[in-house]
Amino acid sequence: MKQLWLFNQINSDLQRVEKELHAYIETDFPVLDQSAVQLLDAGGKRLRPAFTLLAGKFYGYPIDKLLPVAMALELIHMATLVHDDVVDASTTRRGRPTVKAKWGNIVSIATGDYLLAKALELLAQINHPDVSRILAEVSVEMSQGEIQQIKASNDVNQNLKQYYYRIKRKTAMLISASCKLGAIVSSAPRREVWALGAYGHDLGMAFQVVDDVLDVTSEASELGKPVGGDIRQGIMTLPLILALDRSKDKDQLRKILGKTEKTEGEITESIRMIKESGAIEASMHYVDLYINKANTHLQELPNVPTRKALVELACFIKARKF
Amino acid sequence: MKQLWLFNQINSDLQRVEKELHAYIETDFPVLDQSAVQLLDAGGKRLRPAFTLLAGKFYGYPIDKLLPVAMALELIHMATLVHDDVVDASTTRRGRPTVKAKWGNIVSIATGDYLLAKALELLAQINHPDVSRILAEVSVEMSQGEIQQIKASNDVNQNLKQYYYRIKRKTAMLISASCKLGAIVSSAPRREVWALGAYGHDLGMAFQVVDDVLDVTSEASELGKPVGGDIRQGIMTLPLILALDRSKDKDQLRKILGKTEKTEGEITESIRMIKESGAIEASMHYVDLYINKANTHLQELPNVPTRKALVELACFIKARKF
Repeated sequence: MKQLWLFNQINSDLQRVEKELHAYIETDFPVLDQSAVQLLDAGGKRLRPAFTLLAGKFYGYPIDKLLPVAMALELIHMATLVHDDVVDASTTRRGRPTVKAKWGNIVSIATGDYLLAKALELLAQINHPDVSRILAEVSVEMSQGEIQQIKASNDVNQNLKQYYYRIKRKTAMLISASCKLGAIVSSAPRREVWALGAYGHDLGMAFQVVDDVLDVTSEASELGKPVGGDIRQGIMTLPLILALDRSKDKDQLRKILGKTEKTEGEITESIRMIKESGAIEASMHYVDLYINKANTHLQELPNVPTRKALVELACFIKARKF
Repeated sequence: MKQLWLFNQINSDLQRVEKELHAYIETDFPVLDQSAVQLLDAGGKRLRPAFTLLAGKFYGYPIDKLLPVAMALELIHMATLVHDDVVDASTTRRGRPTVKAKWGNIVSIATGDYLLAKALELLAQINHPDVSRILAEVSVEMSQGEIQQIKASNDVNQNLKQYYYRIKRKTAMLISASCKLGAIVSSAPRREVWALGAYGHDLGMAFQVVDDVLDVTSEASELGKPVGGDIRQGIMTLPLILALDRSKDKDQLRKILGKTEKTEGEITESIRMIKESGAIEASMHYVDLYINKANTHLQELPNVPTRKALVELACFIKARKF
């Protein structure tokens, strides 16, 4: 698991989430066990559990209540990843082969269903109506976002509104829920639950824009997956939408991005055009706006050290390279 | 919706389940809306909602409590169908093209995830810890059954125990839960909740064996999907397992069923061998055993007219042709 130094104050509990998740998803089915563990071990930053724990830090940190919620959030996230891999036809994630690449679509679907079922099981144990309701609402929205992404593939006439609609559902809503639920199970005042949710939403939006920028600007070795994956799959991300508007080669770019199948040469060429158009800098400007907005919401919260950590986390999102 | 005359006493409420499901899954996303509605309209016998309503009939029939549970059960069932279609590579179901055949794997996954999310939303509204717990447990088991089916594909050395393990998870557990939950939300005595669950389990097992027999003996026009689908996909059902043991052509049958790819000629040939072996009659003997067992459990329940309907339902399961 890649550890962020920002998570120092919750480090040992994040490791506990990790360990308990391992035990919780264990099953007697060799393939299922391997695929779920592969997915868990591929790691990631465990952002969602971290947000839940950090939100709890403001309100007495009732770890026994926070832990199952953090686990449920990561299970839902993992399930969407493994189903997305089928949708995206991805072969590597975080430098490792995806479940899909290793075992195929069928195991990917079953693994996702299994992880969702385990999340449902945890929710039944948590037995908190608000937790169940919020996660159900987010799940419905997430599946609708998935469909919108399919529908909008290779559509070069997309606008910013459609893009924001999609990344809100793909990323921001679950991160927002992670913050909110940490506050809710810690009995935070209503106004502060709202503020943490708003912080998570804005941070999640910034996080996804950075992700979409990295897909264009990064190196495969840093990214853990091939660069230009979104372009290859016809996903119209912010840098693409902005470049289609401002590139001096916009007609040529439009032609490439509108194709269902693109050659590697066309992908390299479109990356060059996107970078030259200034779309990367413009995208990062949106990141700044979201991060500033996220930090504003933190002013509503008690001034404890965790608040400073959350501000730093927001700044880190912008600077991240992976 | 194909209506069974046995459901006369709950007919209008089953139609209400249907109508409310239509309204509940409605979404602004054209593809998602169409795929979910296609799945719903393909119909089926709405067995699971029917069992929930019938179970409630024993205990005052609190329809407002029964309705959302019946809907959640059908949503979970629909979600597994649409994900199974990807796994099974089926192109028709109940005489209509599957979501997979019409829109592809990606929409099938998203549609299944959407329906599961809507079920989760309903469960959050129902807010009954036993309902959530039981459906979570069943969902976990169902996804494990799915994996076992993948793992056991084309494995001609399977035994009855493995087969029963699989159909329990594929079918019996959700039907058992349908009966049990109808009783639970109607505040049935504990012992009777158990008896209804046991009835549902045994009936579900019988139902799946009949399904597996029909796949061999039926005509495509009656079945609504191609005959021999299980053989084509390498799913070792009871008639196959029994025929592998008793057919005079067992070596040849073993050779065909063990192949990953089978020609249509080989499928026709294997159907002939299975029928000749007496495996169909032997399978139906197991159906009898399960149905008798199911009816025994009904003796624990109050002697109301619904009890007679459930006995008749069990007998109908055996005689069904679709």
